[in-house]
Amino acid sequence: MSAATRTGKLLGVGVGPGDPELMTLKAARALAEADVIAHFAKAGNTSHSRTIAAAHMRAGVIELPLLYPVTTELPKCSTGYRDAIRDFYDEAAAKIAAHLQAGCVVAVISEGDPMFYGSYMHLHTRLASRFPTEIIAGVTGMAGCWSAAGMPIAQGDDVFTVLPATLPEGELARRLADANAVVVMKVGRHLPKLRRALARSGRLPRAIYVERGTMADAKLIPLSDKPDDDAPYFAVVLVPGWEERP
Amino acid sequence: MSAATRTGKLLGVGVGPGDPELMTLKAARALAEADVIAHFAKAGNTSHSRTIAAAHMRAGVIELPLLYPVTTELPKCSTGYRDAIRDFYDEAAAKIAAHLQAGCVVAVISEGDPMFYGSYMHLHTRLASRFPTEIIAGVTGMAGCWSAAGMPIAQGDDVFTVLPATLPEGELARRLADANAVVVMKVGRHLPKLRRALARSGRLPRAIYVERGTMADAKLIPLSDKPDDDAPYFAVVLVPGWEERP
Repeated sequence: MSAATRTGKLLGVGVGPGDPELMTLKAARALAEADVIAHFAKAGNTSHSRTIAAAHMRAGVIELPLLYPVTTELPKCSTGYRDAIRDFYDEAAAKIAAHLQAGCVVAVISEGDPMFYGSYMHLHTRLASRFPTEIIAGVTGMAGCWSAAGMPIAQGDDVFTVLPATLPEGELARRLADANAVVVMKVGRHLPKLRRALARSGRLPRAIYVERGTMADAKLIPLSDKPDDDAPYFAVVLVPGWEERP
Repeated sequence: MSAATRTGKLLGVGVGPGDPELMTLKAARALAEADVIAHFAKAGNTSHSRTIAAAHMRAGVIELPLLYPVTTELPKCSTGYRDAIRDFYDEAAAKIAAHLQAGCVVAVISEGDPMFYGSYMHLHTRLASRFPTEIIAGVTGMAGCWSAAGMPIAQGDDVFTVLPATLPEGELARRLADANAVVVMKVGRHLPKLRRALARSGRLPRAIYVERGTMADAKLIPLSDKPDDDAPYFAVVLVPGWEERP
């Protein structure tokens, strides 16, 4: 069957938290069968998701790198940022649509899970109503982190919450006190504020700081033992629940 | 090397949300290599995790079924329930410890992710300080559900929360209004209360009801279209965030 007479298909493929072995069997098969593999990266950087997926990609598969035009250079609330990002996703969706119209299977790869804070979602909302689409769930980055830490995170009737460290200090403290188990993402330059919010909420003694959670050089320490407030953007802080064990 | 001179190893293996293809490569390899595979089930039932894992288990591998003595027969707050469950986990841990001391690799399989509301955690806290232990993260049941639904769940600076439907109605309503994206678990007989809490919090129009999320016979409908309040224990309700899309 020639490509032009096939129906194209969009695949949102989660490739997991970092260790290539934490990819699902379904994702590995999709990568081996896709006609086109699309991946997001900052301009000038290698795509993390592509690094994870590399061993499963066919030699000669068509690659479609999608390079963010702006990331932290402009304030997120500015019109310039929003317009640039919207145009970028529109153009990326148009490139993928062209391959789908030609009958290709296009796999868009995402670190972690495609529908959980992933860039793929911006393509999904632009394309899923027009083309057959399938999502292949992945192991999230946070699950990779608490597994590497050997840390039970939530049990029984625990309330579990994911917070961005970008929230104001008071709101972070309120929400940290209001949940049993918490994962704080996007820590980076917000670590001094987060540390204060953890102290105010009484959760600092249980907080674990994680850098590169599922990489070979992972760093996991109690936050109270971390001597400085330097943290990369992708660092996370875990506050485990399950305080009453049977 | 004979078994007795090897060091045993405990593996907490997530086998994913239901579709055997949503198991990780690492989990599949661990199942093929384990000496003993332990799985939880209600007495008289087949273990769901074993059904998911079956295709990857070696013929003749030693199986260790761990059968819950009580589940919903006794109230959870009763001393009888707590004692029975504690004794059950103590005995299960002792059985596994005997295999570990004999030098075996013991894989305890969990649906979803082992450290996220999984029974494995009760064995981990009893054994991880005494034996080499490794956790193999898995795709969670909720990620399987939102992927099957093709539903972006959380994006950007969204606050994401997992709630047990066992909470009182007022607390459910407060927490539903206080998060951007919510997954409600353990829906079952709590559905009438949950429906009222969703209405009170203004989130009912966005709520999706999911049964058997990653099975072939999955049922996904807007909760407001569901005509009755019958729901199995493992049904979930998804309330997606990401209300302001760029």
